[in-house]
This record gives sequence, structure tokens and C-alpha cells, in this order.
Amino acid sequence: MSAPAITARQDARSRAPSPRPITIALLGLGQIGSAVARCASLSAGSAQPVRVACALVRDPSRDRADVPAIPLITDPRAIFALRPDAIVEALGGLEPARALVTDALERGVPVVTANKALLARHGEALLAIAVRTGTPLRYEASVLSGVPFLGAFAARPFVSITGITGIVNGTSNFILGRMGDGESLADAIAEAQRLGIAEPDPADDVSGRDAAHKLAVLAWHFGLGAFSPDAIETTGIASLEAGDLGCAGKLGGLIKPIAAVRRAADRATAFVGPAFVPLTHKLAPLGGVDNGVLLDTPGGRLSFTGPGAGPFATATTMLDDVVEAVRGGQPPPRHTPPPAGVAPPSTAWFVRLRGSELPRGDEVAEFLGSHGVWIRHAASCGQRRCLVTYAASRGRVETALGALALATGVEWLALRTLED
Amino acid sequence: MSAPAITARQDARSRAPSPRPITIALLGLGQIGSAVARCASLSAGSAQPVRVACALVRDPSRDRADVPAIPLITDPRAIFALRPDAIVEALGGLEPARALVTDALERGVPVVTANKALLARHGEALLAIAVRTGTPLRYEASVLSGVPFLGAFAARPFVSITGITGIVNGTSNFILGRMGDGESLADAIAEAQRLGIAEPDPADDVSGRDAAHKLAVLAWHFGLGAFSPDAIETTGIASLEAGDLGCAGKLGGLIKPIAAVRRAADRATAFVGPAFVPLTHKLAPLGGVDNGVLLDTPGGRLSFTGPGAGPFATATTMLDDVVEAVRGGQPPPRHTPPPAGVAPPSTAWFVRLRGSELPRGDEVAEFLGSHGVWIRHAASCGQRRCLVTYAASRGRVETALGALALATGVEWLALRTLED
Repeated sequence: MSAPAITARQDARSRAPSPRPITIALLGLGQIGSAVARCASLSAGSAQPVRVACALVRDPSRDRADVPAIPLITDPRAIFALRPDAIVEALGGLEPARALVTDALERGVPVVTANKALLARHGEALLAIAVRTGTPLRYEASVLSGVPFLGAFAARPFVSITGITGIVNGTSNFILGRMGDGESLADAIAEAQRLGIAEPDPADDVSGRDAAHKLAVLAWHFGLGAFSPDAIETTGIASLEAGDLGCAGKLGGLIKPIAAVRRAADRATAFVGPAFVPLTHKLAPLGGVDNGVLLDTPGGRLSFTGPGAGPFATATTMLDDVVEAVRGGQPPPRHTPPPAGVAPPSTAWFVRLRGSELPRGDEVAEFLGSHGVWIRHAASCGQRRCLVTYAASRGRVETALGALALATGVEWLALRTLED
Repeated sequence: MSAPAITARQDARSRAPSPRPITIALLGLGQIGSAVARCASLSAGSAQPVRVACALVRDPSRDRADVPAIPLITDPRAIFALRPDAIVEALGGLEPARALVTDALERGVPVVTANKALLARHGEALLAIAVRTGTPLRYEASVLSGVPFLGAFAARPFVSITGITGIVNGTSNFILGRMGDGESLADAIAEAQRLGIAEPDPADDVSGRDAAHKLAVLAWHFGLGAFSPDAIETTGIASLEAGDLGCAGKLGGLIKPIAAVRRAADRATAFVGPAFVPLTHKLAPLGGVDNGVLLDTPGGRLSFTGPGAGPFATATTMLDDVVEAVRGGQPPPRHTPPPAGVAPPSTAWFVRLRGSELPRGDEVAEFLGSHGVWIRHAASCGQRRCLVTYAASRGRVETALGALALATGVEWLALRTLED
């Protein structure tokens, strides 16, 4: 794990006075807690430093060589004596997370959490305390951990969400993708574990439980329903075989791990499980460990996709939640001065040649190559020939094509090519 | 134009005390201003009513039969005498919009605008005033008008955006889509005008100027560069022919209206124009008038897509900006009580049958039909047969398949099907 997100802003260090650091108390120092501590330690001297005042752990004697030096505490009562600006809850599970988050909100200390099990069962009650006490409660990293979108809707009553359809578990999306390529379930799980995508015990992902928790959070956050994750029809992916996915392909679709909730009047419908998705569906292209959520609104369907898990993406999102919760109000401008100039990029080019007598393909390649423009693909359609080149400046491409037109009489058109 | 977004929240009317209405002054009463006025008039009695105190217009005698009755004013000095909670700028263009927005911010009156021409040229200066005076300036509807995503990043310094690639002009995306189906440029423009997608004078869209304005706003908002839209290499779509798009298809791609900016150290590169996009690219599936933006972060690529224009989507977003700007702080919970119960939906089903001796297709169809399950598509792969059914409850499908298994010995698996 590296932290380029922070270093990118650090070039402002010498130019802008550094604001007062935000101080957080970390609850838990597991995979996510450690990542938060590492990201925070890299923010010293940046536009908004965050300092970890203490971390609540069960066993302070455990080896934590990969974590920056932080005061470790085991007694939760010590947290508030340090007067942190915010609490970052990274314990996971229901207790003592629920009790500590409740305590913080009652004391007026802002809370940031990504604990979907906690939020799925107690989110509504916790938010009620947050509203009563006027204390921020942020949980942007609980669903699509690398994509800020939940908070964007929190204070927007005019946009109405009538339904949500998503892929909210990257591990099962990765596994089904592999099975679509013909791998067995067991091999796909083993591969996911080898790559660090699946945990040693993948039960929460494979059973759909993780997705059901996230769907309950989404339903509650967007006002579509307040219900226990246990009330959602939840199917795991363990009953699938690679051949089933091949068969779905013959019907023009893929099998994807879907979570969906919809509201009609006072009734909500929801399900979690592998579902057949036509290739034309907006979720069909979502491969690998990517996650995505579609929100249906009267004005059209909105889509939000990106990394759904990973310690670095989660820690970045949680630290941004901390900054938002503590700062509030009109955000200050970014401290890193952006470049004032701009230039066109060097990209590959799509070139269309046209004419009644087109030169031969090898002649075109040799001619353009002698002008420093190299061809990667070519195709002919009647009086047109199309090329995709390697990267070059506009000037070089236009000079080469201008010379070709002079020499052979062809007409040409050149468009930039997107490759990533 | 209807306003289901608002009525959906109105069932809370009798249960929760209505908060004090937010009062706005509208600058301009054209297409967007009228839509804001209509949406606001429907919010009376909702969880957050917004009242239009006055609208600044050039000609108060013009017929405005489709707009709710609002006091019209022609003298800008009258605006602030009414002490509005916020200003909604819907004049378009540079002046007098710039002067009026500056005046409002200097007086501490929050401003909401979707004016990308204004923001592209004066956004940085206006934001500096907003920060100095501590006055909110919101412009969520200026890019991807129906998708809230700009504000989500405003106060998040930990997530670093290194590049942006997007389709930010729905009109040219629609036109190129039609040309990809073989239509001429002129016919595609005429069709877009007939559908209300293109304006009578489509020059801003076809030339790329609208997209260049939006790209300048994105570059500035995300800290990738502060430069005039005139400095961006901008190519229109007028030089393209339908045959060019067919040719691109032969090379495995589409031609899409792209806007891209990237930052490398102190240098920014950017371009706007039709570009070749491989079919595997994340922007390739974006058809019709949909808009989308990809944000590159160290943790992965984030994608935001949805309606990019339209008076209703724009007005909804602007009114949500008003609420956010005026309220601030921890958002109150949604007033509409969500349903407490949840049920599985009725969906179509993907059914896989397997066995050494599969019953004939017509026998399966007849058997399942007699149990109320109707087949829409079917395909065979070796010892498997796959079906997609019409919508049915899980109970009905499982009963039918259980009976089929008993009668014929086939094994079965049933998965829900996503259709939208």
C-alpha cells in the first residue's frame, strides 16, 4: 500500500501555512485501522494534517511493526479524556462498536465508521442520536468504499431515489468473473484468496451476507426502507458452476452478484444474490473487483462505480469523512496551486483515409513511418481505410497526413484515441 | 415536465411539522429559471419548501403562462431588499451574471448557479470571494446536471484526482450515436432538434464549446488546472460522416465526444473533441444523451454517469444545492418514513436444467406453463438447458421446477434476472 493521494497535495507545503491538525481517536487497529494510521501519518505537513491521538486495541503487546507509533489504550474511558476532534471506528462487528459510537455521539464527538454490520442494524438509531445532538456521523466508506456518493445525497431532498440496483461485493464479482471464463468455484475462490481479494474465510462474501448488510444501509440511507438485513432474500454463489455461466452467455447475458431494492408506495422489495444480467445492462461491464450502484430517479438513472474495498481506498475515504465532519461549512480551496497552462496530450490517433484510388496499406505504413507516425491496426471499408496509430503529437500526425495527401491525393481525418 | 421527485416526499406532510420555507431570488426566468420556479412551487408543504421571492427579468411584460405567479423585478438592486436566503443564478452568459453573483457573495448571500461559461472564466475568482466571506457558492448542476458528484469532492483532501475523462455534452453524444447507426450529420442534428435535445442553434454543442467550458470547470474544481476554455484544444463533430463511424466499428471501437484533462507534475494536458473509444472502454456503453465522467485516483478509477442536461434534472439539482447551502451541518433525516417491511420482488428468472436425459423443449414449456411459469427464451448447451422466464414469484418458480424435477429427474437452478 502506498499513499500517492497524500503526496500529490504536499507540494503546497512550503507555500501555504499548514492548518491545525485534526486529532482522531482510532477504535481498532486491524487491517482498516492500520491503513488509516498509515495514511494519517503521511499527511503531516499537508494541506490538512490528521494526527492519531490514540488507538483502542484489545492486546497492546501484539507485534505492529507496519503501523506508525501511536499511543495504544485498552480502556475505552481513556478515549474522551484526550478530547479528540473525531472518532474513527474500525472495530467491526456490533459490540463494543455500537456502545462506543453511541457514547461519542452523545458527547458531541463526530464519528466516522465503515462498519456496515453496525449500520445495517443500528444505523437509524445512531443517526437519530447524531441529529438530536447535532453531531456529525459519517459512513461514506461503508458501501463502495472508494467512491464518495452517499454523503452527496444526505442533504438533497429534491432528488428522489425510487430504486437501487448494484454490485456491492467485489469478491463475489471477481469470483463469478473467473467462473465466466470457465474456472471452477473452488479455483476462483483460491485465486481470489491468493490475490488478497478474498479473506481466508470467505463466508461473508460468498453467502451474500456482506452484500445484504450493504443493501440494508443503502435502503435506509436513501429512504427506501428500514429493515433488518435478515429480512432480505439472500442467495449465495456457492450453488453455481462454471457451465451455468457459459449457458447464460448463450442467452446474451452474464451472471453477476446483484443487490437490489425498490420502493412502491409503502412496500419495499429487495433481493441479494447471483442474477442473470443482459449484456446490454449498465452493470454488465462491471468486472474484476469493481463495485457499482445504479440509482433510479425521476430524471433518469444515475450510476456510481469504482473500487468497493481495499484498505487504502477505505482509509482515504474515512479520513476525508473526518475532514468533512470536523470542518463543515464552505470548503476552503485546494492548497496545491493547479497548473495555469494546458497543452494537448500525446495520444494514439484514429485516421480515416478516403479516395477513389487509395495507396496500398504497406505504402501508407512506410510513408507515415518515414514521418514518425507508426500504425498499430488498420481496416478497409470500400473507399475508406482506417488506421489506429501509436501515440504522437497532433502536429506530427497532421504533417504526415498532409504530406500523404499531397503525394497521393487521399482525403484524411484524424481523431484522438482513448486507450484508458 | 412533471415533478415526481417532490411529490414522493410529500406523504410526510401530515406527520412532520413543516420547517420554515427557504426563500430564493431567481436571476433569470428562461428555460432553467422557469423549471426552478415550477419545482419550487410544488415543494410547498413538503419536508423542505422553497419559495421564490422574486425573479429578475429583462422584460416583465413577456407571456409566462407556464410559470407560477412570482413577483417580477427588473432592477437588480431590489433583490437584496427582499433578504433572500439564497440567490439562484439562471441568466447564463458572463454579464450581468458575474457582477450579480459577486455582489451576492460579498453581501454574504449564498449563490447557486449552473452557468458553466461563467464558472469556466470566473469560477476561481468567485470561489475566492466565497471563501473570504464564508458564503456558500454551489454549482453542482454545471456539469452532469442530474448527477450530484462535484460537491462530494469539495471538502475531501485525501482523495487525489490525477485525471478526468468524460462525455459531458449529451447533444453531441446523441448525434454521434445516430451517425453510428448510419444517419447523416444533418439528419441526426434535425432529429435531436425535433426531440428537444438540441437547441435551434446547436453551435455550442456541435463545436465542442459547451464541453470545453465544462472541462475547464472540472479541471479547476478538481485542482487539475486553472486555464481558460480557449486554451483547450477543441474539435467539433461537424467534419464527421456516418461512414467514419462505421469504419471505427471495424477497428473495434466507437467515436464519442470526449473531454479529457490530466495532470503530470506542473503540466496539464487537455482536449475536447470526437475521439475513437475502444468497445472495452468504460465510456463506450454511454449512449443517448447520457453523460459520464471518469475520475482517476490512486485507488482506482471512479465513474459517475447519468442525465447531463434537461430543465427538470437541472432544476432539481439547483434546488438541492439551495437546501445544502442554506442548511449546512449534519443533515436532518428524511421526513418520509421508509417502509419497515421488505419482500422479494417479482422478477423474470434464469433457469438452468441439467440431466442426462432432458425433456424436450416443448414439453418443458407446457409443463412449466401449467404451473403458471412462462418461458421467454431458451438455449441448450450439452446436458444443460437454460431458460429465461417471464416475471413470477420465487415460490411459483420453485414449485414448478420442483414438480418438473419430480416428474423428469432433471436438476435445476433458478436465478433472478435483471431487466432494467
